Amino acid sequence: AFTAKQKSISPNWPITHYSRPATLRVVLSSDLSRPPPAPISAMPPLTTPKSGDALFASVERVNAELFTLTYGAIVRQLLTDLEEVEEVNKQLDQMGYNIGTRLVDEFLAKSNVSNCADFKETADTIAKLGFKMFLGVTATVTNWDAEGTTCSFVLEDNPLVDFVELPDTCQGLQYCNVLSGVIRGALEMVSMKTEVTWVRDMLRGDDAYEMRVKLTKQVPEEYPYKDDD
Amino acid sequence: AFTAKQKSISPNWPITHYSRPATLRVVLSSDLSRPPPAPISAMPPLTTPKSGDALFASVERVNAELFTLTYGAIVRQLLTDLEEVEEVNKQLDQMGYNIGTRLVDEFLAKSNVSNCADFKETADTIAKLGFKMFLGVTATVTNWDAEGTTCSFVLEDNPLVDFVELPDTCQGLQYCNVLSGVIRGALEMVSMKTEVTWVRDMLRGDDAYEMRVKLTKQVPEEYPYKDDD
Repeated sequence: AFTAKQKSISPNWPITHYSRPATLRVVLSSDLSRPPPAPISAMPPLTTPKSGDALFASVERVNAELFTLTYGAIVRQLLTDLEEVEEVNKQLDQMGYNIGTRLVDEFLAKSNVSNCADFKETADTIAKLGFKMFLGVTATVTNWDAEGTTCSFVLEDNPLVDFVELPDTCQGLQYCNVLSGVIRGALEMVSMKTEVTWVRDMLRGDDAYEMRVKLTKQVPEEYPYKDDD
Repeated sequence: AFTAKQKSISPNWPITHYSRPATLRVVLSSDLSRPPPAPISAMPPLTTPKSGDALFASVERVNAELFTLTYGAIVRQLLTDLEEVEEVNKQLDQMGYNIGTRLVDEFLAKSNVSNCADFKETADTIAKLGFKMFLGVTATVTNWDAEGTTCSFVLEDNPLVDFVELPDTCQGLQYCNVLSGVIRGALEMVSMKTEVTWVRDMLRGDDAYEMRVKLTKQVPEEYPYKDDD
């Protein structure tokens, strides 16, 4: 029943360098099917990527506290509805995944990023530009394994958790699972299957937020999409 | 089990002119009790209120699309969990109410607004400063009744609904009920009981978003709180 009629994102949505239709939309029905996105390398050659600060300044924004409290309201609702903390963790991850598959479009449209050479460059791009564009903070990429397929994103400032403390009954809660889900969803849209897990969490007393991102499969891009597909 | 230990909002949280403890926090347990806020007129005399633009520029922000998609994820989750659209409407309103009771603190702390003379001035302040501070847009206050107790907020730009279309199965959904809940919750914290209902909704084909705010009871402020209460 959900129709995919498109709505422009804002009057100044920069369609320059962006030949795909904007597929960002909020899907209310359970039908999450949509046309597969063009692989990242099928994008037309672009200009130099913007800096994180320029990128963040170029997007429309809302108050961070409103976002934080709204996210808190989701978590609270899930805890009430699902009761099991483990189920809440799964649901937050799935929500993040759905959001990530959509945010990647906006990221590609606005960042002028065209093609990342490998997983390392992709990770750096997410850390420096992706986090900045959406949350206004940057992450550090570190702890690479020898194969170059697993790394960590470390966040020292995390707008998601301002004012949050876990009650004793929620100690197993992965409060920030939406973020790891976003990373997983966004990477899957650019042909990288990953597993993302939290290894440090300040809500549990650690000194930073650290998520471990493991590239499990890189889907070969078998054919380039054309602009008018 | 929830402890109310406070966390500072940001390193540059302006505590000047703000003598109450910051009570903004995300409440995860079902215990929503907290100390009653000081009535708005008990605030110490403040400097001139900031302009909406200055206010919005002074707060930390996140990407509006991330907020929109996150809110969309809540609505979708509620539709899945609760099934009845009417129940979803109630839940969104209640979430908004909870958020509003907390956002009002940040608004008072950052806006330099101290005391509104009456409901009219309060409504204007919300429309020009409150909406701007949190959503980056302003509302128009209009359609006052003769008694000066009912008015409308009209929004032409509403970041909550970018990319949203209602599927046919959700025609009774009040997608923006979180906003009317926020208004109701925030006003209740400054001693004004209201009923807030949507009378126009662009998602249903109207030409703007209009919520009707009716002041039902103004709780007299019986005693001033002292700063060290």
